[in-house]
Amino acid sequence: MTVYFCHSHSRSLKFVRHLFSVFCLLILAAPTAWSKENLQEVMKRRGLTQDDILAAAKTYTPTGGRDEFLVFASGGQSGQVIVYGIPSMRILKYIGVFTPEPWQGYGFEENSKRVLEQGRIDGRDITWGDTHHPALSETNGDYDGQYLFINDKANPRLAVIDLHDFETKQIVVSPIYQAQHGGAFVSPNTEYVMEAAQYATPLGGDYVPLDQFKEKYRGGVTYWKFDREKGRLDPAQSFSIELPPYSQDLSDFGKLASDGWSFTNSFCTELYVGGIEKGRQPFEAGCSAKDTDYMHVINWRKAEALYKAGKVTKVKGHPVITMETAVKEGILFLIPEPKSPHGVDVTPDGKFITVSGKLDGHTFVYSFEKIQAAIAKKEFVETDPYGIPILDMKKVLQTQVDLGLGPLHTQYDSVDGVAYTSLYVDSMVARWNYRTGKLIDRIPVHYNIGHLMTMHGDTVKPRGKYLVALNKLAIDRFNPVGPLHPQNHQLIDITDSNKMTLLYDMPLPLGEPHYAVAIEANLVKPVMNYKAGTDSRTGTISPHKTMAGSERIERKGKKVEVWATVIRSHITPEIIEVEEDDEVTIHLTSLERAQDIVHGFTVNKYNVHASIEPGETTTVKFKADKPGVYPYYCTEFCSALHLEMQGYFLVKPKVKKDKK
Amino acid sequence: MTVYFCHSHSRSLKFVRHLFSVFCLLILAAPTAWSKENLQEVMKRRGLTQDDILAAAKTYTPTGGRDEFLVFASGGQSGQVIVYGIPSMRILKYIGVFTPEPWQGYGFEENSKRVLEQGRIDGRDITWGDTHHPALSETNGDYDGQYLFINDKANPRLAVIDLHDFETKQIVVSPIYQAQHGGAFVSPNTEYVMEAAQYATPLGGDYVPLDQFKEKYRGGVTYWKFDREKGRLDPAQSFSIELPPYSQDLSDFGKLASDGWSFTNSFCTELYVGGIEKGRQPFEAGCSAKDTDYMHVINWRKAEALYKAGKVTKVKGHPVITMETAVKEGILFLIPEPKSPHGVDVTPDGKFITVSGKLDGHTFVYSFEKIQAAIAKKEFVETDPYGIPILDMKKVLQTQVDLGLGPLHTQYDSVDGVAYTSLYVDSMVARWNYRTGKLIDRIPVHYNIGHLMTMHGDTVKPRGKYLVALNKLAIDRFNPVGPLHPQNHQLIDITDSNKMTLLYDMPLPLGEPHYAVAIEANLVKPVMNYKAGTDSRTGTISPHKTMAGSERIERKGKKVEVWATVIRSHITPEIIEVEEDDEVTIHLTSLERAQDIVHGFTVNKYNVHASIEPGETTTVKFKADKPGVYPYYCTEFCSALHLEMQGYFLVKPKVKKDKK
Repeated sequence: MTVYFCHSHSRSLKFVRHLFSVFCLLILAAPTAWSKENLQEVMKRRGLTQDDILAAAKTYTPTGGRDEFLVFASGGQSGQVIVYGIPSMRILKYIGVFTPEPWQGYGFEENSKRVLEQGRIDGRDITWGDTHHPALSETNGDYDGQYLFINDKANPRLAVIDLHDFETKQIVVSPIYQAQHGGAFVSPNTEYVMEAAQYATPLGGDYVPLDQFKEKYRGGVTYWKFDREKGRLDPAQSFSIELPPYSQDLSDFGKLASDGWSFTNSFCTELYVGGIEKGRQPFEAGCSAKDTDYMHVINWRKAEALYKAGKVTKVKGHPVITMETAVKEGILFLIPEPKSPHGVDVTPDGKFITVSGKLDGHTFVYSFEKIQAAIAKKEFVETDPYGIPILDMKKVLQTQVDLGLGPLHTQYDSVDGVAYTSLYVDSMVARWNYRTGKLIDRIPVHYNIGHLMTMHGDTVKPRGKYLVALNKLAIDRFNPVGPLHPQNHQLIDITDSNKMTLLYDMPLPLGEPHYAVAIEANLVKPVMNYKAGTDSRTGTISPHKTMAGSERIERKGKKVEVWATVIRSHITPEIIEVEEDDEVTIHLTSLERAQDIVHGFTVNKYNVHASIEPGETTTVKFKADKPGVYPYYCTEFCSALHLEMQGYFLVKPKVKKDKK
Repeated sequence: MTVYFCHSHSRSLKFVRHLFSVFCLLILAAPTAWSKENLQEVMKRRGLTQDDILAAAKTYTPTGGRDEFLVFASGGQSGQVIVYGIPSMRILKYIGVFTPEPWQGYGFEENSKRVLEQGRIDGRDITWGDTHHPALSETNGDYDGQYLFINDKANPRLAVIDLHDFETKQIVVSPIYQAQHGGAFVSPNTEYVMEAAQYATPLGGDYVPLDQFKEKYRGGVTYWKFDREKGRLDPAQSFSIELPPYSQDLSDFGKLASDGWSFTNSFCTELYVGGIEKGRQPFEAGCSAKDTDYMHVINWRKAEALYKAGKVTKVKGHPVITMETAVKEGILFLIPEPKSPHGVDVTPDGKFITVSGKLDGHTFVYSFEKIQAAIAKKEFVETDPYGIPILDMKKVLQTQVDLGLGPLHTQYDSVDGVAYTSLYVDSMVARWNYRTGKLIDRIPVHYNIGHLMTMHGDTVKPRGKYLVALNKLAIDRFNPVGPLHPQNHQLIDITDSNKMTLLYDMPLPLGEPHYAVAIEANLVKPVMNYKAGTDSRTGTISPHKTMAGSERIERKGKKVEVWATVIRSHITPEIIEVEEDDEVTIHLTSLERAQDIVHGFTVNKYNVHASIEPGETTTVKFKADKPGVYPYYCTEFCSALHLEMQGYFLVKPKVKKDKK
């Protein structure tokens, strides 16, 4: 690039001369090449405004650059977790969680199959999930970058992802729910991960006619114990609290001032069961007849003590604190909240809880101090049909604000008191102050925002800077790609104290994220390779670790076991011959140490696939039920001689016995 | 934003004053907000250079903006196809092809299951694929935006995606190969889609010991007939040509001057079969012992005539032109090509064919005219071990150039003669002229580039402008996300006649694309919704189309069939009660017409999921084998009352018979 410097001697321009020098370069850059454009020409050609250039400068990340924050978004119905960077808004990884994913070998080799098998339900493989709310592990109420939890709504499950290698390590199934929408949420030191069902069913899921809904259907919240040392949930130390058959929605753990408590909102406290086909009103109407629903206020620390003291009933072997016990022991209270709420969010200092009624238009701010005072004084207005004491809303409310239509979720800023609430119907984000109840600013989004996310926005220490609108509709924002549209995550600059500014529209090409969490990138420290012979799913050295020179093939009856190695650019052994109907097990160890050198492995037509990262040992297994010649090969372009990284698997037909 | 205009009266600045006015805005914009940054401050904070800002301006696409080109990239081992935009480099969609994908309902509802079932092999479900080379349908040698074809290397299959809705419509299985790496490539009017196997096996795949490799193992190319009116491949009108057991690599169809011919390169003409575990040299060495390999030159138009005349042998019922026939009829020739080539690419005018030897370091340019002359004069230097005539390389070579280390693939520019070749070992792209054999420019990429792609770069009319480097390693380019790294696609500006400029690094978060094709976005015209009641996989009106008011539940013996509708915000019916072990079929019709309003459907725990786009009718099916209460719900956040879009599926237990 040829560069001209432009010098000005004009007095009137002196005060900006130092600013100009940079831009002179931009304007005059490289006139020698006939087709090279300068910035002004590019702006004209592409129809970009000055604000666009500023937004581009705030997001564009040149080669080798790093993002400041990492986002973990649920993948919705894809059953996966999506990782992307802020401010570049580039997607860095889809992590296989509930849905088998062959690029990662997830569900196509034995080590990861064992994780997926933990998620079987009623003896059935479940090969997808409806992931909703990711939660990062916390220490003292702030993200620590160690673990990620994600729920499956459609099949009541919860998964643990280890951020040391971004792999799913565990799936647990709820023993008592038939759905699990309201999670994951973690306590300030990740002692527990919380889940709620949403759809009321008989606890344990057994058949009970719908006309016994009020009597026998139930909701609840589960507190899954997390064993941080093992990095696994411990079902044997987990418990639940029985709740009325309201649709328990989202939850949040208290923190700092409210540590030891948790909050769960609900809708459909009308106890409606549907039946549009019988001439009844549809669910959507029957579930929104009342003006208020209930927030559940729970003393989980005391609940834990009750559980440990054995004050539980077992449902399908799982300990449940009944509503009766919860009321008697004074750990469960209700507070009226605005109609059909979606989202309950504790402020960074733990002193307030915000709830928005999506059909009410108001956002309520409850004072934890006032809640505690009311509980202490037993200032209850009544009990609900299940005997749970209801607090006087007026006495515990700090303020209520009208932010716009369809308010849903709230996240917090690093600036004290500043909050952001998504407005689904208005397609806007509202910036407001929960201490003063004042609306500060609103910004349109495209379109119909669900959740929103600020940086560390649900912790004790929000980082400010950026907000992402998780919009539910994209409509016309991107090039058309058929009836099924991408989602649209919009990055918004919140550093300016007055105005929020839209920076970037990011299509989500696979899955519908519901919630997302953003962590400072430097808090996440993944490894680049494994200790030689590691089973990545257990984190232990595999008994099948194989070193160079010790590759072998062994036969025991109809079982053929192969210990193989992979390294640029060959698989050892290169020829494996078995007999028809042999059960074949191939253990594969990567002898690589170098970053990003991954090998894949498949035997053609046998529906197995492994991704073998540096140092990893894994296993594929299948029955050689069809005689023939099957190539096997490295599926990851690993080297100049990748295409030659192959072998032959031969299946010799059984000798047919002569018929007499 | 507050804006100050700056005026200069300095004579020395007059000549650039008009240019400055725009930038004054940028520099001085909005000093009123304490934290609002101007462009210079952003550049300083983020360490951006002026070139970075120019690159940002060339790629940043503001909200609602459109990309100029759409890219269809193979998803490698993910088994999917990836769609992204240029120049924004935003991923717009992952299309489910060989791997079930629940967000799209692909493989979780019956309509798409029927597509996946076409891909069963040896009675086995194959639930992944190793996609390699996408090909867009062509009319007169240029992309027409109608169909996309993609191969599966691991399981010899080929899929058809209809760009009218970006859905996979068909999967065909090769009857004769055990692998299918070398495809898809289309003829200039999409009469045929070409595939080659790579790994030699006995045609048909039956067991033959490896010591009969030379005699009984074979390669080949298949010409799959495409029925454009039906939008489907027609296996009954497709045929193959038997080839020697070389590793047939990639192919290309001739065009314009070379129309009617096709070209397939190969490696491992050493006929090596491996055996490192037996003390033999590894595959990678055995397959690269010779100095040259062979390009296969085939007169496919004449081959088609032979096939139609019945001059074929049937292998597993599939018509194959034997090598003997091919040689006798003069439709098959070999030309020596540089060592272990990867990529054979016909120039836009069809007059030249470029092949690069990845272990040779040379790129050869063959003249089609000279090839024809040599064939006409029967100037053969010898025959290969299978009797195929070998042309004199020197007589058909136009030029050979040394571009750098590890040359692989070549794409073309809109500027006559200009070509781009990927250099794997050098991690560079070379720009050169295939007419003059002159190297013009080289640009480093990060790292180890495989394929590369220019806009319409393999058609008769390349569009120039951009090039994408499909790099195999990312290493340090992005924030770390564990041992398994994203891929890195780098966008390069090729508009300047002298220098190529790197614009953008794009991580690929799922799958390893091998090849990609880029089409002018305005040539692709997908629909936004379906005609009411459409089965999207067949394109016909479903017999189960259900309109409002005609929803119903019918029982026949143990079979329960439900005709349901979905519309914001309810599912009709809302209660479905069946008996244990009933076979349940639920047909779902979306009554929506509005763009981007999609509903999802699942019955909890039963591993079914549908994505129901506007107007679509689809079906889920399962056995109600466990008594209990199961919520069903809309899985796509469709409206303010989405959470209330639910129903109850009840499974009544069988009455236990008393034991006497």
